[in-house]
Amino acid sequence: MSKKLTPRDKDYSKWYNELVVEANLAENSAVRGCMVIKPYGYSIWEKMQAELDSKFKATGHENAYFPLFVPKSLFEAEEKNAEGFAKECAVVTHYRLKTDPEDGSKLIVDPDAKLEEELVVRPTSEAIIWNTYKGWIQSYRDLPILINQWANVVRWEMRTRLFLRTAEFLWQEGHTAHATKAEAIAETEQMNNIYAEFAENFMAIPVIKGKKTESERFAGAVDTYCIEALMQDGKALQAGTSHFLGQNFAKAFDVKYASKEGGLEHVWATSWGVSTRLMGALIMTHSDDKGLVLPPKLAPVQVVIVPIYKGEEQLNQISEVANQLAADLRAAGISVKYDNRDTHKPGWKFAQYELQGVPVRLAIGPKDLEKGSVELARRDTLTKEFVAQTEVVDKITGLMVEIQDHLFNKAKSYRDNHITEVDTFEEFKEVLKAKGGFISAHWDGTPETENKIKELTKATIRCIPFDGEVKEGNCVFTGKKSAQRVLFAKAY
Amino acid sequence: MSKKLTPRDKDYSKWYNELVVEANLAENSAVRGCMVIKPYGYSIWEKMQAELDSKFKATGHENAYFPLFVPKSLFEAEEKNAEGFAKECAVVTHYRLKTDPEDGSKLIVDPDAKLEEELVVRPTSEAIIWNTYKGWIQSYRDLPILINQWANVVRWEMRTRLFLRTAEFLWQEGHTAHATKAEAIAETEQMNNIYAEFAENFMAIPVIKGKKTESERFAGAVDTYCIEALMQDGKALQAGTSHFLGQNFAKAFDVKYASKEGGLEHVWATSWGVSTRLMGALIMTHSDDKGLVLPPKLAPVQVVIVPIYKGEEQLNQISEVANQLAADLRAAGISVKYDNRDTHKPGWKFAQYELQGVPVRLAIGPKDLEKGSVELARRDTLTKEFVAQTEVVDKITGLMVEIQDHLFNKAKSYRDNHITEVDTFEEFKEVLKAKGGFISAHWDGTPETENKIKELTKATIRCIPFDGEVKEGNCVFTGKKSAQRVLFAKAY
Repeated sequence: MSKKLTPRDKDYSKWYNELVVEANLAENSAVRGCMVIKPYGYSIWEKMQAELDSKFKATGHENAYFPLFVPKSLFEAEEKNAEGFAKECAVVTHYRLKTDPEDGSKLIVDPDAKLEEELVVRPTSEAIIWNTYKGWIQSYRDLPILINQWANVVRWEMRTRLFLRTAEFLWQEGHTAHATKAEAIAETEQMNNIYAEFAENFMAIPVIKGKKTESERFAGAVDTYCIEALMQDGKALQAGTSHFLGQNFAKAFDVKYASKEGGLEHVWATSWGVSTRLMGALIMTHSDDKGLVLPPKLAPVQVVIVPIYKGEEQLNQISEVANQLAADLRAAGISVKYDNRDTHKPGWKFAQYELQGVPVRLAIGPKDLEKGSVELARRDTLTKEFVAQTEVVDKITGLMVEIQDHLFNKAKSYRDNHITEVDTFEEFKEVLKAKGGFISAHWDGTPETENKIKELTKATIRCIPFDGEVKEGNCVFTGKKSAQRVLFAKAY
Repeated sequence: MSKKLTPRDKDYSKWYNELVVEANLAENSAVRGCMVIKPYGYSIWEKMQAELDSKFKATGHENAYFPLFVPKSLFEAEEKNAEGFAKECAVVTHYRLKTDPEDGSKLIVDPDAKLEEELVVRPTSEAIIWNTYKGWIQSYRDLPILINQWANVVRWEMRTRLFLRTAEFLWQEGHTAHATKAEAIAETEQMNNIYAEFAENFMAIPVIKGKKTESERFAGAVDTYCIEALMQDGKALQAGTSHFLGQNFAKAFDVKYASKEGGLEHVWATSWGVSTRLMGALIMTHSDDKGLVLPPKLAPVQVVIVPIYKGEEQLNQISEVANQLAADLRAAGISVKYDNRDTHKPGWKFAQYELQGVPVRLAIGPKDLEKGSVELARRDTLTKEFVAQTEVVDKITGLMVEIQDHLFNKAKSYRDNHITEVDTFEEFKEVLKAKGGFISAHWDGTPETENKIKELTKATIRCIPFDGEVKEGNCVFTGKKSAQRVLFAKAY
């Protein structure tokens, strides 16, 4: 505990890994690529879940639960989706272990318990869900279906990193079915907007909304909308995606509906998701060399109170004030922890709560008792000031908003300063190397050019942005015509 | 829709299966033994989750998340646990599919992607969690650890039934670590009490608290505490279990702590869980031949309002009243649905909401407009009355409590009438056949007698009850000495 983190400018990646573990967010497990999400990390994820869930429900979606396993024959039904996920899926082949005849303390797979059909552990649930929707949809009256699922999924990634890329991760996946193309596209847009709004207003992470190019699309989608965030090291992170699936899955699973007009039509689909990857985005947007920095809306503990005392009598006097302040703050809807443990010194506690990103720290010592004050420290600015005890609740109520805004504005200003328009490929490479961030450049619209640029620079097209001026130009690489600038970046 | 269910007295099992599907709670999926939990069923589960989660948190537990997979070498570490679950576990052996060389549209398991060590899909998480706790526990200061996980688990059951026994199910599993035996036992008891309190006060299901016999214990536990409920067909259902695990897992995973006194001791453990099986208990405790009956605390929709009208003008007039009532009810914290769809007739709606167990139905027709009344129907008693519109909120606020109590009392009186003390084995068999329910009988305490009785009657010992008089006697089967009566029943 209170071990110093590697500074970000020395080794950003090492800083990240250390922070995740030291701040008690998550750790690696005995299962290759799978993480343990520790209580503190999980409580942040729970806050994200609650907020997203209420947004989904407010827009008419309901939760449901579909099987963990996808039979191989369903998995392979939508060709592109299957192709996209086949290379990285966990496959259940047997349903029993038995005692090893050579060593009674060991178990082996029972060869007599081989499944007739292998089961894929879901990497995403379009296949199993559309096979189910087939039974639910006969007529236009059965549409739309607006369902979300909170679940675990498995993608057998070879190189994993806590939260950012793990073999198993937690996510939500929305799967909707619509009578018309227009309605499905509107849903795709709506959910991408909800993600953007959530990222910006709840997580204080500024994002750019846009569309993926064909090569970056979800396997099986007609169009992938996304929100892209920028991390402190100049790399982009895809923070959420919303897919317009066209009729691809309806065709693969033969899902048709009788229209009002009496025809028989394939159903239109969307799917959309965000995952525990957002924890990585959160960390790499706000945190510093001292540890995690949390926006108040996401902080499991918003205010920590630390007593500074010698002897029990002094502690009792301080506790009286601290408990009263805690009660008043809680009554104002603020979550508070009073840490009066005698097993740790104040300095250790200060470092620990800084590491864990508690937005506001109050320290109360004997002098504060005399003066009726407390020392208030902000985690985001690392500034301190003395505040009268009578003003603490008002002050902190205001700070909750102020800190949230400050973190967003700081991240936004960093992000805005790291969108660079370039018009030559030399400049492209220079900016990428010197500064990173998003490079706004013209592109001729072909996967060939996109791939070439990726090969040469490791930068990919993060999105074709929705907002901002649309102006024609010439591709930064081939000089061919370009309809609008797109955003390149190296990415997580 | 609004299809009539098979009456319970004709075929209880068929009635159950039909109800689950017709009331939109769940259905079978394309994956053998795995269910789809539909939005209406899932929303009831969400209410259970929210209530349990707040009870867990109020007693100091935190949520976390551990991997879905358990490497075989960890799975087999605690011998009895391994033995108990090896026969029914899904095993991941490969991490990739590839295109079938004989049929380009098919996929096959890639033999080159065989895992070095097989992974078991968790049937329960003691193994993976205790392997993790090993890294978290050094000293008494690290204890207790009070963690809960909401997760999916897989047990490859051969005969499955929706909610009651499915290959994959949802549950919560608490896993705690303690410095002393006494503390672990107190935790085991506390959680069993929380389950009992939840079942009775939230789900309106009366339960009997007790201990399992050795043969019915959780694999790897020293003691299993449980709550047992009685279904309408006279069969018992285990509704929750809380296990005192002793030092079994600490020894299997070598988890020791430095005590205050300077010694090195193995840690004491508990685990406890309830699952989507509770949905089955809910259905079979309260429902009737018309469908689901829901206690108000669990009902996703507590009040439905159905307009009875001819023509748009009448509908508009009724809607004005209905919307006002809905708003007033919502302001009183009651969930309301106003179903003004013109695609379905009132009679169809009545049947549908009866099927889905909505506790209170209000119908408003043209005469009600004149009289300022509404027709109020209770789902639990199937009674109707007219209520003045001005009194609806008060009336329904009271009914929410009354219905909840009525359902509990009704179930309790049924349960109490189905606990029969017997003193001979003849009587045992007679009562079991004629009446079912719990049979309170003396037992000599041996697994042999327990097994014999099970073979002869299919009844098992559901629990050694905690409450009630403890009196010695003679075993109903062998005549040998018995310390107290235990409860036998056929069970789900």
